[in-house]
Amino acid sequence: MPKQNHQRQTFFAARLKIALYIILGGLMTTAISAAIAQTVLPDPASTDPKTLGWMQGFPPAPDKVIQSGNGSNYQFPRTRWSFSHGRELGPTSNVWHGSLPASALPQAPADLDGIRFIDDKGANANWADMLNRTYTDSVLVMHKGKVVYEKYFGISKPQLPHIAMSVTKSFVGTLAATMAVEGTLDPAAQVITYLPELKDTAYGDATVRQVMDMTIGVQYSENYADPKAEVWDYARSGGLLPVAPAYEGPKTFYDFLVKLKKEGHHDEAFAYKTVNAEVLAWIVKRASGKSLSDLLSERIWQKLGVENDAYFAVDSIGTEQGGGGLNLTLRDMARFGEMMRLGGKFNGQQILPKAAIEDIRKGGDKAKFAKAGYATIPGYSYRNMWWIAHNSHNTFEARGIHGQRIYIDPVAEMVIVKFSSHPIAANGASDPITYRAFQALANHLMK
Amino acid sequence: MPKQNHQRQTFFAARLKIALYIILGGLMTTAISAAIAQTVLPDPASTDPKTLGWMQGFPPAPDKVIQSGNGSNYQFPRTRWSFSHGRELGPTSNVWHGSLPASALPQAPADLDGIRFIDDKGANANWADMLNRTYTDSVLVMHKGKVVYEKYFGISKPQLPHIAMSVTKSFVGTLAATMAVEGTLDPAAQVITYLPELKDTAYGDATVRQVMDMTIGVQYSENYADPKAEVWDYARSGGLLPVAPAYEGPKTFYDFLVKLKKEGHHDEAFAYKTVNAEVLAWIVKRASGKSLSDLLSERIWQKLGVENDAYFAVDSIGTEQGGGGLNLTLRDMARFGEMMRLGGKFNGQQILPKAAIEDIRKGGDKAKFAKAGYATIPGYSYRNMWWIAHNSHNTFEARGIHGQRIYIDPVAEMVIVKFSSHPIAANGASDPITYRAFQALANHLMK
Repeated sequence: MPKQNHQRQTFFAARLKIALYIILGGLMTTAISAAIAQTVLPDPASTDPKTLGWMQGFPPAPDKVIQSGNGSNYQFPRTRWSFSHGRELGPTSNVWHGSLPASALPQAPADLDGIRFIDDKGANANWADMLNRTYTDSVLVMHKGKVVYEKYFGISKPQLPHIAMSVTKSFVGTLAATMAVEGTLDPAAQVITYLPELKDTAYGDATVRQVMDMTIGVQYSENYADPKAEVWDYARSGGLLPVAPAYEGPKTFYDFLVKLKKEGHHDEAFAYKTVNAEVLAWIVKRASGKSLSDLLSERIWQKLGVENDAYFAVDSIGTEQGGGGLNLTLRDMARFGEMMRLGGKFNGQQILPKAAIEDIRKGGDKAKFAKAGYATIPGYSYRNMWWIAHNSHNTFEARGIHGQRIYIDPVAEMVIVKFSSHPIAANGASDPITYRAFQALANHLMK
Repeated sequence: MPKQNHQRQTFFAARLKIALYIILGGLMTTAISAAIAQTVLPDPASTDPKTLGWMQGFPPAPDKVIQSGNGSNYQFPRTRWSFSHGRELGPTSNVWHGSLPASALPQAPADLDGIRFIDDKGANANWADMLNRTYTDSVLVMHKGKVVYEKYFGISKPQLPHIAMSVTKSFVGTLAATMAVEGTLDPAAQVITYLPELKDTAYGDATVRQVMDMTIGVQYSENYADPKAEVWDYARSGGLLPVAPAYEGPKTFYDFLVKLKKEGHHDEAFAYKTVNAEVLAWIVKRASGKSLSDLLSERIWQKLGVENDAYFAVDSIGTEQGGGGLNLTLRDMARFGEMMRLGGKFNGQQILPKAAIEDIRKGGDKAKFAKAGYATIPGYSYRNMWWIAHNSHNTFEARGIHGQRIYIDPVAEMVIVKFSSHPIAANGASDPITYRAFQALANHLMK
């Protein structure tokens, strides 16, 4: 008995430890925002994964080993290594690059490190400061179709995929929006038209559109402090967390999704919950008859002329984590972002229907979005799993929880893609300085 | 207590079940050969993974699911699916294809299905019969530098890597032979010059050459019927087998290798043991300062102009399984085989030093090889982890235990690469018909 108790405690402690770093979430209320502002963060330079020497040597020294079995892969600053080595830590499925040569990414390098702006504390800062303070792993800026800036830090490399986390959702949403325009997916239909398995769940009376825009009333808590929060079962079901020997909960994403209960009403407010992306991924697969990996490869990856395969983290039966499991290279994410900026056109062809991109860019319901109380992005909306700013530059974004980003500024003809491994698992931790830097860069490039 | 016993028994049963299918071994004595001849094998057509519908649908039907956690991925006929989906079942490391376009594989298709020969039972047979009877997943034949035949069966695809199993060893041996020619690895040196960690093991008084040619006296049994055989600890250490909750044995390949005891003498006889390939992989990494994945990518993969990334299965700390964990596509394996036939030259450049290929082709000690008692390949020798036939065509080969093969016939200017998932984990089960078909094809192409 004491042993069992100890096991339970150890397990619970491990869960709490990785709480901040798990591949989920994205909520940033004013309260959380204030808490973050008071957090003392480690000097980014001291967390450089190359300097820290993770996983170097054959074998690595015991204190330099990063593994998934003990959760060390989610512990900052180990994340600065593990976010670029996901496939070495668990099962994955391939998003094939295709058989054609990579598309051109014309170069027009510019020294942008010194671009200045006033940070959220009123102090002088520049572009390089922002990259450093947001624990950037790699960043690339395109302007008018040319790469003007490209940097890799730490152990990052152009050919090394990085986990995109919730940026994944925007890929799933883009596929869904495309199928909607093509008529192979009906946003107005009931979810159960595609997934009768969800009849007795929160999704039993929801429409596909409500899932696409995350206005679902579902009992799903991402409160890491609560050991009974649904997020833990979600993580365990997908193999993101080790399970105790006695574990008898859901063992796959599907097992988890069919147990979700309704809470409140649909269509009243934007409520960002990762499970909606998993449900949308399931709908997209059921409607297309293809896995997420094959669909992304066939519809987008091969046509973009990417340089490298991407991959998804998968659960124990090979189901891709549609809510956060996509890993891809920075350059290929730039190609995707540039295609989005150009209304679906890239590499000499119309890859996605223009109407699908337009449907994303028009945005969702701002009033419903406002109810969610995001402090760092007031005035936004959420549509087809993209974040729409409704600002003078018509910017729209894909956002990942540790600072992963596709930022598209159509007015400045600029696309910024960025991988980070910020110690705080909330975009609010980096939004204030990130947006100021992005806007300063846009202004500079428009001169 | 009874519960614990039951757990143990279940676990042991699971181990036995997968015994024949594990990624190891290669020994084929006269006794085993006779036993195989009497085995009634399932009709290959009835084991087609597409027809059987493994892993189709979202989710797949419960009886169509293949997982690594319960060992179903090693159960024939599920292997006909899982041997091409290894990365979806466990952690892997990437062998990057590089940033250049794929090299040309000129086509000169020929209908070879009807090429006739007399099989080992004295009956008429043809090329297509051989493919069927050896549970072929894919096969490609090159003649004088052109692809004359290329077929994919079941769920196989040109872009889908297949596990090469012991063909992996020949890649490791080729890298070692290359480093020996270049002077960055000394075959005459003691193993402990590179790996002082192995001082108190079987390798404490062995040379690198003895490891390269597998003439090591080491206590390592691959007798699957013996629950204490070292093969089980090897498999558990590498994460190839699930471990019981109470397991306290070696948890990584390194942990396992430093515990190997001497048995008999070195340099007396060829003794095929997978652990030697793991030790050689370790030596190669220590001498080069690079992981096996990076070394293979930089020295061979990128220069060949492969079409796709390859990958290694890795253990819980990311160590590649050098004895059997390489997964690659058929076409890329053909490029590698063709380079070997051409003395290291391919894609317009000398990729590996000619002297390294010559050192492989000259073969090892035939007398020492004979002592191992291989019934289906008499007169062979083993050098740098390649199998050398010493026949009139100077053929040499890389061999994997379920029928994976790189067969190089310099006289016929022919290279055959083949992936299979034969239900019997021993090359002896397919050698008799395979060699007759290969020789008939060589004779036909030389006409």
